[in-house]
Amino acid sequence: MTDASEFSHLAPSGSPRMVDVGGKAATRRRAAAEAWVAVGPAVAARLRAEGGLAKGNVLETARLAAVMAAKRTASLIPLCHPVALDAVEVEAALVGDRVRLVVRASAEARTGVEMEALVSAAVGALTVYDMVKSAGRGIEIGPVRLLEKEGGRSGRWVRGEASDGAG
Amino acid sequence: MTDASEFSHLAPSGSPRMVDVGGKAATRRRAAAEAWVAVGPAVAARLRAEGGLAKGNVLETARLAAVMAAKRTASLIPLCHPVALDAVEVEAALVGDRVRLVVRASAEARTGVEMEALVSAAVGALTVYDMVKSAGRGIEIGPVRLLEKEGGRSGRWVRGEASDGAG
Amino acid sequence: MTDASEFSHLAPSGSPRMVDVGGKAATRRRAAAEAWVAVGPAVAARLRAEGGLAKGNVLETARLAAVMAAKRTASLIPLCHPVALDAVEVEAALVGDRVRLVVRASAEARTGVEMEALVSAAVGALTVYDMVKSAGRGIEIGPVRLLEKEGGRSGRWVRGEASDGAG
Amino acid sequence: MTDASEFSHLAPSGSPRMVDVGGKAATRRRAAAEAWVAVGPAVAARLRAEGGLAKGNVLETARLAAVMAAKRTASLIPLCHPVALDAVEVEAALVGDRVRLVVRASAEARTGVEMEALVSAAVGALTVYDMVKSAGRGIEIGPVRLLEKEGGRSGRWVRGEASDGAG
Amino acid sequence: MTDASEFSHLAPSGSPRMVDVGGKAATRRRAAAEAWVAVGPAVAARLRAEGGLAKGNVLETARLAAVMAAKRTASLIPLCHPVALDAVEVEAALVGDRVRLVVRASAEARTGVEMEALVSAAVGALTVYDMVKSAGRGIEIGPVRLLEKEGGRSGRWVRGEASDGAG
Amino acid sequence: MTDASEFSHLAPSGSPRMVDVGGKAATRRRAAAEAWVAVGPAVAARLRAEGGLAKGNVLETARLAAVMAAKRTASLIPLCHPVALDAVEVEAALVGDRVRLVVRASAEARTGVEMEALVSAAVGALTVYDMVKSAGRGIEIGPVRLLEKEGGRSGRWVRGEASDGAG
Repeated sequence: MTDASEFSHLAPSGSPRMVDVGGKAATRRRAAAEAWVAVGPAVAARLRAEGGLAKGNVLETARLAAVMAAKRTASLIPLCHPVALDAVEVEAALVGDRVRLVVRASAEARTGVEMEALVSAAVGALTVYDMVKSAGRGIEIGPVRLLEKEGGRSGRWVRGEASDGAG
Repeated sequence: MTDASEFSHLAPSGSPRMVDVGGKAATRRRAAAEAWVAVGPAVAARLRAEGGLAKGNVLETARLAAVMAAKRTASLIPLCHPVALDAVEVEAALVGDRVRLVVRASAEARTGVEMEALVSAAVGALTVYDMVKSAGRGIEIGPVRLLEKEGGRSGRWVRGEASDGAG
Repeated sequence: MTDASEFSHLAPSGSPRMVDVGGKAATRRRAAAEAWVAVGPAVAARLRAEGGLAKGNVLETARLAAVMAAKRTASLIPLCHPVALDAVEVEAALVGDRVRLVVRASAEARTGVEMEALVSAAVGALTVYDMVKSAGRGIEIGPVRLLEKEGGRSGRWVRGEASDGAG
Repeated sequence: MTDASEFSHLAPSGSPRMVDVGGKAATRRRAAAEAWVAVGPAVAARLRAEGGLAKGNVLETARLAAVMAAKRTASLIPLCHPVALDAVEVEAALVGDRVRLVVRASAEARTGVEMEALVSAAVGALTVYDMVKSAGRGIEIGPVRLLEKEGGRSGRWVRGEASDGAG
Repeated sequence: MTDASEFSHLAPSGSPRMVDVGGKAATRRRAAAEAWVAVGPAVAARLRAEGGLAKGNVLETARLAAVMAAKRTASLIPLCHPVALDAVEVEAALVGDRVRLVVRASAEARTGVEMEALVSAAVGALTVYDMVKSAGRGIEIGPVRLLEKEGGRSGRWVRGEASDGAG
Repeated sequence: MTDASEFSHLAPSGSPRMVDVGGKAATRRRAAAEAWVAVGPAVAARLRAEGGLAKGNVLETARLAAVMAAKRTASLIPLCHPVALDAVEVEAALVGDRVRLVVRASAEARTGVEMEALVSAAVGALTVYDMVKSAGRGIEIGPVRLLEKEGGRSGRWVRGEASDGAG
């Protein structure tokens, strides 16, 4: 967590605004985000059973939901700019008793694609939840967080901690 | 985490399906979910400064985004049924270095509103992230989880643990 | 303009909320709204020329846009409840130098369809504007207003003044 | 109101079409529009009361709805081109017994952002209506109109009359 | 093809309208539709190769797209009523050199779900096309047609001909 | 039908992905597609009657639905890239007992607009179906197919066979 300089989405008056990015150059922007779903041992065991059929279908459904959600980011997050994404890749895997989604998004744009990656990962995680919730209601989503960001004035940023979802 | 009996979203063939709820009675359904955003001390301090203006606007923007997202649930989560929500209430507060959103949703429906509450809380959290991200990139979202659920065959469910976001 | 008693969309705390209509009965709701577009004499003359072809197409396009917008109301107006409309009828006519749209909407619902009628009429008017704007930029939309409302606790309401768009 | 030369949205056959802008250069486009809501003295008084809390929340909700609607323009207005907006700024103020919204939009595009500004202002006004309608049903929206437009072949245009909403 | 009595979507004036279904009873409605995609022998062979991996993923993606599209019907087809679907089931199979999608939809509604089933099947077919188009551009979609319909005044209807897609 | 080399939407692992087009140049892309609706002789006769009023309105409604659907392509087809369309032109005509829609779409983009043209034509055809279905339930849609494609690495492609819809 670096120091707080300003909230660019708030005007000097304190009112929310969609920042003017018209003066920025359109450059290659990339971002990667992850989301974890703690499904618990019973669901995890069941996902592993039956020749991987259930797991495959749960994870594929989540991956497609994540790809589609990335394209909806600007309509969900009030002050996000619309961005024409060039690529969205979603990995989904069962890691112990948790499902991990990793989303990589990129575009040539005047603004970053950080929110696209995060929204995509979060909706993928919510879809996993929806698919397995009938088998266990204590399931939790989190952390949802940025892994990496590149392009634009602020350069490249990579998450420092080991990304083990321990937060 | 109760025992895993079945994944209702998967047909016996293993293929994803939108479960047929046509045989269920339309009853009053309620669900409450929460989402936490660990914004870090610097952002939290800044949110508290300036007479609460920044905090108010960040939290209000997140609350509205959460209400609007609740209504989009069926278009984001592939196998969710469309539900005409009767109420969506969103609380947002700064608790220490974290923002907490609590969403309560209700409807008279053949299916629960659990996903509506969770999607709403998650999008509210993502909106907080978007509003403060220029002031700190290590921000994490989570846990996003169900607090309570009521209505339908499975009756009332309340999360057992103390809901302190420690996961 | 009757007296201001309360803003139901604001909670006692002042925060916006989607009012809980769960306790209300689902009854037949109807609303009619109008929207005017002052296109000016030159555009009006052109619309009347050419055997009505241009006029027909401008008005039909606006009517369809209005019908479709009615169905989007809950996704545009943050605190509106989703309503499954049973009917949307849109009339569009050239009256002097102005286009008038009248929308009638109805549904069996726990909440009124006033916003559906108004959003529909407004988007119809914006579509007229879009269709003729290349021929005159001073065009103005307004008034957009409710004509009639029926159903629910507050009973029937009919606009008192002569509805001539003079405001 | 200048003279009517042609309706670019109608093909020579009279049929509506989405004009081909492929041959135009992508240049900086800007537009400003306003929308007025005559809420009446009772609602205006109530908005001013209570330390501005109600007013702040009504106006902020309208502003956010306006920003989000600007991004939906191409899906609401049938023949509008999709435009990736670089900025949307919305001001909202209580002026006497009326609320005034002013929207400024900009993009680098082959087509203007006039409709984006107008749709945004109109939806902001409809949201004000929705927020205060429980306190007075005679409320009227209008005028909704362009204030200024810049970029593209037709150059800069500024509304001549005093913009006092008297229409 | 039975005899043409009337077009219910056109008012006596000839103008399109969203028919008023407010007077109809909400009853159980069901519809099944199919869509075929002639992918050609080369694509079919490739889909069958590699242990069914490609086929599985193409068909699963199409099935999910079909389910999601069913829920969007009212926003795509201008005069369709919004319907809260209770179930959407999509089968997808490779039959010779063609992919066949069958969609079954149901709801308790005042209007049928015929368009929901057809839109769903068509979007599933378009998704198959999109997934395999890089391997063969002559691919054709069709027929897309109703197989069966039930509920409402007109009772049950079942397609007479053998449903072999020969049209 | 040319030979099947690869399915670009599937990763080497077999999983669906949104192909990375970031390395491609943005060039002028064009595509034309057609969709046929076999309405049968009774509906065709009725469409021709009454001075063309019914026909005009059915075809105009379908054309507008087609234009609007083209803009929704990326939200319907899971792995499609968002594309800012520069033009969408839709022709609709009654040819014997069938309605034919032809859509031409273009954009300056890193990816083709083939899916936009096809989705648009298909939704136009579904709208024709919806408009006339009350007069004949055996109506069939198809073929829906690409007529021509231009721009990008693969150059120009034109359908070889006579486009008579016989498939």
